[in-house]
Amino acid sequence: MEKDALNRLAIPDEWPLNSTTSCQLHHRTIRSFTVEQIPEETVQMLKEVTNRTASSTGMQQAGWIRVTDKALATKIAAVCKQTYVAEAPELWIFIVDCYRNKQLAKAHGADTSLANGMDRFVQGFTDATLMAQNLTSAVESLGLGAVFLGSILNDPAEIIRLLELPELTFPVLGVAFGHSAQSPQYKPRMPVALRGFENRYQAAEDYKDAFRQYDELMTQYYDLRDSNRRLDSFSMQVRERLAVTNPIRQRILAYVVAQGFNIEAD
Amino acid sequence: MEKDALNRLAIPDEWPLNSTTSCQLHHRTIRSFTVEQIPEETVQMLKEVTNRTASSTGMQQAGWIRVTDKALATKIAAVCKQTYVAEAPELWIFIVDCYRNKQLAKAHGADTSLANGMDRFVQGFTDATLMAQNLTSAVESLGLGAVFLGSILNDPAEIIRLLELPELTFPVLGVAFGHSAQSPQYKPRMPVALRGFENRYQAAEDYKDAFRQYDELMTQYYDLRDSNRRLDSFSMQVRERLAVTNPIRQRILAYVVAQGFNIEAD
Repeated sequence: MEKDALNRLAIPDEWPLNSTTSCQLHHRTIRSFTVEQIPEETVQMLKEVTNRTASSTGMQQAGWIRVTDKALATKIAAVCKQTYVAEAPELWIFIVDCYRNKQLAKAHGADTSLANGMDRFVQGFTDATLMAQNLTSAVESLGLGAVFLGSILNDPAEIIRLLELPELTFPVLGVAFGHSAQSPQYKPRMPVALRGFENRYQAAEDYKDAFRQYDELMTQYYDLRDSNRRLDSFSMQVRERLAVTNPIRQRILAYVVAQGFNIEAD
Repeated sequence: MEKDALNRLAIPDEWPLNSTTSCQLHHRTIRSFTVEQIPEETVQMLKEVTNRTASSTGMQQAGWIRVTDKALATKIAAVCKQTYVAEAPELWIFIVDCYRNKQLAKAHGADTSLANGMDRFVQGFTDATLMAQNLTSAVESLGLGAVFLGSILNDPAEIIRLLELPELTFPVLGVAFGHSAQSPQYKPRMPVALRGFENRYQAAEDYKDAFRQYDELMTQYYDLRDSNRRLDSFSMQVRERLAVTNPIRQRILAYVVAQGFNIEAD
């Protein structure tokens, strides 16, 4: 990305751009929303888009909770530590759902002692995440803005309690969306060459050097966004963030076990 | 979905359909491809779309390996137990990549003893999955077909070996794509009401009954697709699949540990 990339993306003429890929390339996280609500027919369409997302072996081991109760949204916002979570007109929490299939198998008289396997948890986690991105792409294609909320995992137990999630379910990711009330710059990504490889993993010879240009771009990005952060670069952010750990998020598997999943190797 | 849903989706007139959401609603998994290659400029655009996918706290802890070596693709196809994996013109394997940031922090003299946390693994797993869906939506918008390959996790150790994945990386999901050589029916999804809830998880009162209509639709779907499977329904599939476990996939955390991640609660 060139220097003007913060306000305008440089898209080569030869790329087969269409409205979908143009929207994807112009993705920006939106954290401020107008009070305008999303029409019911739009919500219905978004539910069906989400529902038609591919799922692992067709088992559909994921789902979502749409949070329309503002008091509940405020409690979730407290877990996320972001007030905008409660201000967004739409808040959807994606979940692993292995409970449903267990109940269904049980209703058909099956032995369900293997329904709590880690393989199924991973499939459900993947399915839930695919759905969250598919929803977000649909939302953005409608000219709306969205933000992913990995921060619901700041306190999995509280989210589980708030949403009354039964055994064999687990919160994965939230998506808040609505009409955007901001127009942020495009946040630069590291060069494709640093994260996409061919045939085998290719480590950089000198990481400091490999990230120099991207660091400069990010410093410029933060400088324009907030002059108090002007010395921030990607490398400095990584350095700072890797120095600390979130003790609850590090313990995520304890909450997975508490929801009834078997994390032991059989 | 109505009875004709297998060949034509019923989309209400009042939905604000656009080319993106229309494509998403018409999603079908494609498992057979023509030999036509994907032009280099399309691949470049798809890489940038993938790269611009949102990432957890901006840390970009995921990446991909594009497999262009057909001998390598054949070995991956063996893990997936699906020959079409090697026949697709494009095969991308998405990975958790916490190795890169660790090396970057190290190059800047940081203590990286906390770089292997489970919180980062989960963020990377989420990021990789978001990228896989974003790529797939772009691919489908171009009129191409794609298939997700959760089956790479049939043997994580083999994928790690084949792609030379270093510590703190992990295979998540593959996407194979190209020009479609088939036009499958739309696979029915369970009704939205069974997997999307409002404000709290809502268990069905009678699961057998709740799935009756969907079971009939799926029986019809399989009957049309393959008359040998005519008695298959969603409930019967769930029953069969929950009765068995894949011992390697159940042991996924053992492979996560082998890649250097700390799954213990601190």
